[in-house]
Amino acid sequence: MDAQGMILAISEAQMGHKQGGIPIGSVLLLPNESDAEGTFTLLGSGHNERIQKSSPTLISALENAGRLSPEVYRKSTIYTTLSPCSMCSGAILLYKIPRVVIGENETFLGEEELLRSRGVEVVVLDNEECKDIMRRFIQEMPQAWNEDIGELR
Amino acid sequence: MDAQGMILAISEAQMGHKQGGIPIGSVLLLPNESDAEGTFTLLGSGHNERIQKSSPTLISALENAGRLSPEVYRKSTIYTTLSPCSMCSGAILLYKIPRVVIGENETFLGEEELLRSRGVEVVVLDNEECKDIMRRFIQEMPQAWNEDIGELR
Ligand SMILES: [Ca+2]
Ligand SMILES: [Ca+2]
Ligand SMILES: [Zn+2]
Ligand SMILES: [Zn+2]
Repeated sequence: MDAQGMILAISEAQMGHKQGGIPIGSVLLLPNESDAEGTFTLLGSGHNERIQKSSPTLISALENAGRLSPEVYRKSTIYTTLSPCSMCSGAILLYKIPRVVIGENETFLGEEELLRSRGVEVVVLDNEECKDIMRRFIQEMPQAWNEDIGELR
Repeated sequence: MDAQGMILAISEAQMGHKQGGIPIGSVLLLPNESDAEGTFTLLGSGHNERIQKSSPTLISALENAGRLSPEVYRKSTIYTTLSPCSMCSGAILLYKIPRVVIGENETFLGEEELLRSRGVEVVVLDNEECKDIMRRFIQEMPQAWNEDIGELR
């Protein structure tokens, strides 16, 4: 499931990049309990839309999943191409999503330690494609990137 | 400024309640630097829209403020009728908003300690009107409230 989840998240990041946006993608998956191992339900998918929607707070994968019951979040896994910022990490904690699979944390290290300290399983894949996408974007649009992470320059 | 900020946040909570929503309101204010003490600019205001927009992640006050520069967030104060959940607290940390004024934290205690540990000034007004609004809502709609805070029941 993890390899497939990351492929879906990367597709979202690439879609965001094609739209002129910040190329961070994410999906929320629910592992199927009764079916064959490794199958899942796609609950939601999305990419950063700061530029496309002038949105400073949209957490698209979770927003696009709509209103889910607390039970469902607690069985799901979230995949994200980049280490989650404090806002996205806070959403993971709010909904008690138990597992986060991260493409890479070299171009940006989010709140992985906070998540672990609260009992969330955090897996970092160190995926080269995820790093390439971010490196290129940060070179192309350093200001949009700094805005996205609240940095002054 | 704090009394006025909280009045605006309570107005937003009441607006949310009238719409059949979860009555939590918030505003983002920028203190004016050169003008008379206590004057401010309203950057954004909003209320919880989980029910109105089927939104699990909208942080309306910040979203309605639009894309602000990192410099502006760092000079602003956020007012919220209720202690901020982990997602909203994460947004405050992401954008390095230095000051949070909270109406009450009796019906729900959010991530105040995390905010303080990261250097955010946290002021709790212990406002009775904020408590009344939430108490009534939780009695009327316990399930929507549990969904909002990711609790099972
Ligand atoms: Ca490496
Ligand atoms: Ca009291
Ligand atoms: Zn984020
Ligand atoms: Zn919140």
